[in-house]
Amino acid sequence: MEQNKQIDIGNYAHIRSAEGAKTLPNKYYVSEDIYNLENEQIFQSRWLYVCRESKLRNPGNYFLYEMEKESIIILRDRRKKVRAFYNVCRHRGTRLCSELEGEFSKSIQCPYHAWTYGLDGKLIGAPNMHEIENFNKKDYPLHRVALEIWEGCIFINLSDNPQPFRKAFAPIYKKFKRWQLSKLEIDHSLLYEVNANWKLILQNYSECYHCPTLHPQLNRLTNFRDSANDLEEGPFLGGPMRMIKSGGSMTMSGNRCAMPLSGVSGEDLNRVYYYVIFPNMLLSLQPDYVLIHRILPLGTSKSTVICDWLFHPDAMTDSKFNPSDAIEFWNMTNKQDWEVCESAQKGIASKVYIPGPYSEFESMIAALDREYLKALDN
Amino acid sequence: MEQNKQIDIGNYAHIRSAEGAKTLPNKYYVSEDIYNLENEQIFQSRWLYVCRESKLRNPGNYFLYEMEKESIIILRDRRKKVRAFYNVCRHRGTRLCSELEGEFSKSIQCPYHAWTYGLDGKLIGAPNMHEIENFNKKDYPLHRVALEIWEGCIFINLSDNPQPFRKAFAPIYKKFKRWQLSKLEIDHSLLYEVNANWKLILQNYSECYHCPTLHPQLNRLTNFRDSANDLEEGPFLGGPMRMIKSGGSMTMSGNRCAMPLSGVSGEDLNRVYYYVIFPNMLLSLQPDYVLIHRILPLGTSKSTVICDWLFHPDAMTDSKFNPSDAIEFWNMTNKQDWEVCESAQKGIASKVYIPGPYSEFESMIAALDREYLKALDN
Amino acid sequence: MEQNKQIDIGNYAHIRSAEGAKTLPNKYYVSEDIYNLENEQIFQSRWLYVCRESKLRNPGNYFLYEMEKESIIILRDRRKKVRAFYNVCRHRGTRLCSELEGEFSKSIQCPYHAWTYGLDGKLIGAPNMHEIENFNKKDYPLHRVALEIWEGCIFINLSDNPQPFRKAFAPIYKKFKRWQLSKLEIDHSLLYEVNANWKLILQNYSECYHCPTLHPQLNRLTNFRDSANDLEEGPFLGGPMRMIKSGGSMTMSGNRCAMPLSGVSGEDLNRVYYYVIFPNMLLSLQPDYVLIHRILPLGTSKSTVICDWLFHPDAMTDSKFNPSDAIEFWNMTNKQDWEVCESAQKGIASKVYIPGPYSEFESMIAALDREYLKALDN
Repeated sequence: MEQNKQIDIGNYAHIRSAEGAKTLPNKYYVSEDIYNLENEQIFQSRWLYVCRESKLRNPGNYFLYEMEKESIIILRDRRKKVRAFYNVCRHRGTRLCSELEGEFSKSIQCPYHAWTYGLDGKLIGAPNMHEIENFNKKDYPLHRVALEIWEGCIFINLSDNPQPFRKAFAPIYKKFKRWQLSKLEIDHSLLYEVNANWKLILQNYSECYHCPTLHPQLNRLTNFRDSANDLEEGPFLGGPMRMIKSGGSMTMSGNRCAMPLSGVSGEDLNRVYYYVIFPNMLLSLQPDYVLIHRILPLGTSKSTVICDWLFHPDAMTDSKFNPSDAIEFWNMTNKQDWEVCESAQKGIASKVYIPGPYSEFESMIAALDREYLKALDN
Repeated sequence: MEQNKQIDIGNYAHIRSAEGAKTLPNKYYVSEDIYNLENEQIFQSRWLYVCRESKLRNPGNYFLYEMEKESIIILRDRRKKVRAFYNVCRHRGTRLCSELEGEFSKSIQCPYHAWTYGLDGKLIGAPNMHEIENFNKKDYPLHRVALEIWEGCIFINLSDNPQPFRKAFAPIYKKFKRWQLSKLEIDHSLLYEVNANWKLILQNYSECYHCPTLHPQLNRLTNFRDSANDLEEGPFLGGPMRMIKSGGSMTMSGNRCAMPLSGVSGEDLNRVYYYVIFPNMLLSLQPDYVLIHRILPLGTSKSTVICDWLFHPDAMTDSKFNPSDAIEFWNMTNKQDWEVCESAQKGIASKVYIPGPYSEFESMIAALDREYLKALDN
Repeated sequence: MEQNKQIDIGNYAHIRSAEGAKTLPNKYYVSEDIYNLENEQIFQSRWLYVCRESKLRNPGNYFLYEMEKESIIILRDRRKKVRAFYNVCRHRGTRLCSELEGEFSKSIQCPYHAWTYGLDGKLIGAPNMHEIENFNKKDYPLHRVALEIWEGCIFINLSDNPQPFRKAFAPIYKKFKRWQLSKLEIDHSLLYEVNANWKLILQNYSECYHCPTLHPQLNRLTNFRDSANDLEEGPFLGGPMRMIKSGGSMTMSGNRCAMPLSGVSGEDLNRVYYYVIFPNMLLSLQPDYVLIHRILPLGTSKSTVICDWLFHPDAMTDSKFNPSDAIEFWNMTNKQDWEVCESAQKGIASKVYIPGPYSEFESMIAALDREYLKALDN
């Protein structure tokens, strides 16, 4: 395989292969039934990236994680523990909060009949319900949602019986230590509405075969052949690309826009690492900053993507800190990607669409498709 | 039951009880199938409140009652009789009128091919149809809709075989005589679009348990404990609340905004009466004015509500007439209610929603739910 | 039959008869299942009018024919042949073009991964795919669409096995020679969005029984009784109407707005001919110009109509050329028609709608309904 000759990033590239795989049949992109099955088997079962923990600085802080049909309250309780609950009153189902973020004093009170819950979810007040025979407040706590924090990132799991997070994340639990992710702060966020299936967004991220055509600016910074995967199977997929310019970064200027993250050294100073954290997170590690995409399905052909640019607080106070160089670069690249994802969504809906062959550069999509089908079939 | 001790309005309060009832499962608020069944079993079977008769002052006057899929022409014919017909030409189905209200001269002519109907619905003109063998105009009258007038209110029934109105309305047929409803005139109307199931709006109206939390202004005028029901089962549900201030009314100022209705006397001068007229009318009787809400379902989670403020014509010419005091009060209260109904609709759609327990103050909702389930099952 | 006495256009009028036919049941206008069946049995099977050939003047010119779920590339290749392909890349299904019209140089390149096709649809470039075992470019041409040109009009057929065009169009293949359709040019186009089923638009076009009521201006130019059909059964239906004013035309002024088309002579100078070319074209031949309507279904109750006004190039340079006289006339008439089609769509959706009787003047609709039901049943 020609491209491998040019890669000197580790020794994993040689095993990369699409192995004759083809794209998925179009039902996976247009069928309502499959979309509902995905919701059940994937989005109600897997750990989902929600937000950075730093969004909840103080006890009482909360925000809502809004999915297509669910609203989840994520809060920091009085003992500073982060917790998650369904935004559903146990009395008549009313949403307890409608503001997307805010601060609770010591409790959560339903605006309808003043049923009141502690920040631990326990029902602590239910006016007049003492008149009802056998009514017991302990029977009506808020519905809890499993929650874990990893590298400063909050994950939730809507399953009744979630796989333990450490087990689920074992392949990458300590992998990114050198980027000191938990210390990073969001400098900028952008929200995109994309008229494409969520999987098309993950697939688009999983190969740089499209870079020469779609991303002329990005393609000047990294050669699509200079890439490799160090995670090649399972829910975590990706690996490094070498930057053409030594000491550069993925920015409009091609130069770093912040001082390098202190744990990053050696060859990593000349690389960018791209990882899919299945099913809804994309993690892009540059020497000087980190990019996180969060994807939210809103139907078979509609998704929301939130993109965060993270920097080290020390870098943010440096006189040479120039985040717009990275923000502008990825905002441009994001828009190029979303537009082609939307074109793919439309074309795939055609009656003549049939699975097409992957190139070797799309081996990671083939792995992603395998993981997806396995998850759907569970 | 504590709240009953404070009630001295009649002797019906003691039997009020939610009897351990719980809220309805969420299918009744989100399922398309149940929504279609409701349409058939309730909205195509029960008597529906449409409008005040005074809207049709003169012979020839008409207006359209527009439902989700049907349009009904309500008109006053030349003999001053009020009639209702489906807005569907018997030739090719075209809607005969598109203007929401207006005046017919002596007939209704289809704009497409000039088929012409008398105000009694008979086909009186069908150009060129005499050439068609066996064509007989008497076979093609407009489809009639059963119609009755009660207390100045027009009701229609879309059933082929409607229950006689007097029988259906027996429990309340003469109940409201003292408010002289048929003489009242609409002073003001407001239309609201509410993203909630129609039943949530009825349920919201059926209890004042939420008043302390949701309606601080209203709660200053009536104490939610000072309420009772004099209709506790069936399609008509409700009863009186005592106003805290003797001689007051439900207004921004707490004072009457018009002279009391002449038939209202004694303790009724200090009460407001609230009734659900199942399935689409809410009747609120103040000493000085009457409020009518009409509810129109437009889908599982969408309704329109029209709210009319009615006064006696004598009061409307009085120098102290101040209707905005009542309009502003109920517009504010309506908006508080619709917002929480929308929050309930969203929360109930959650996968974790399960029926919650009613308090004793929600006994009327429990009765309403029973009536609804009975109607659905007919 | 009274109207026949006044007709002296040929001898076909005597056989026109609605034969007691009635309008179609409402499922044909509101059912999603029938709409999907129509798509399969009619719009994926019959020859569809797309556009005038003159839209593609030069080699490389293309435009997109956009249907509800399909996008078709229609192009003129380097050898000047007009061809049609699905706008779907064989790699990952991406739409190759998004601009509605434009010019290809020598090939069509997918914007995603640069797979490149010749204007004959052959895959001529697929970067890096040589690395994939057994990958052969000849296995991945664009999906072709059958295409024919008739009288300067481009028709396509989405069937895998289309009926030969000449056989399908035999009844009218040479019928319109005297209007020299292939030489005409579009002077003006208007697009209308109509909230009505596509069949209501065809039916509306198929009778002038509605003209006295709906089209007072048109009715002054032609008497609805002075009409006949010279095609009375099958997918092509229609015939002439005599204009009241000798030497007139269908314009605001009632006069010709361009010199008569050179092949039109004798009685045709005083006639307008109206034809339905099932399922999506309406052809209206005036002495001085030609009108073409193209209808595109976008759901059970939504259609797009594009109306083109065609003139002879010689007439267009004449000093007396006054196309706005015709454009204004038909734009007015079109809007009157679409509005009543929308009223019919609404009324037909009513639960009380039942098929109504056709008049003798609606015999062509009865024939259209028969052809439609036959097509649906194939």
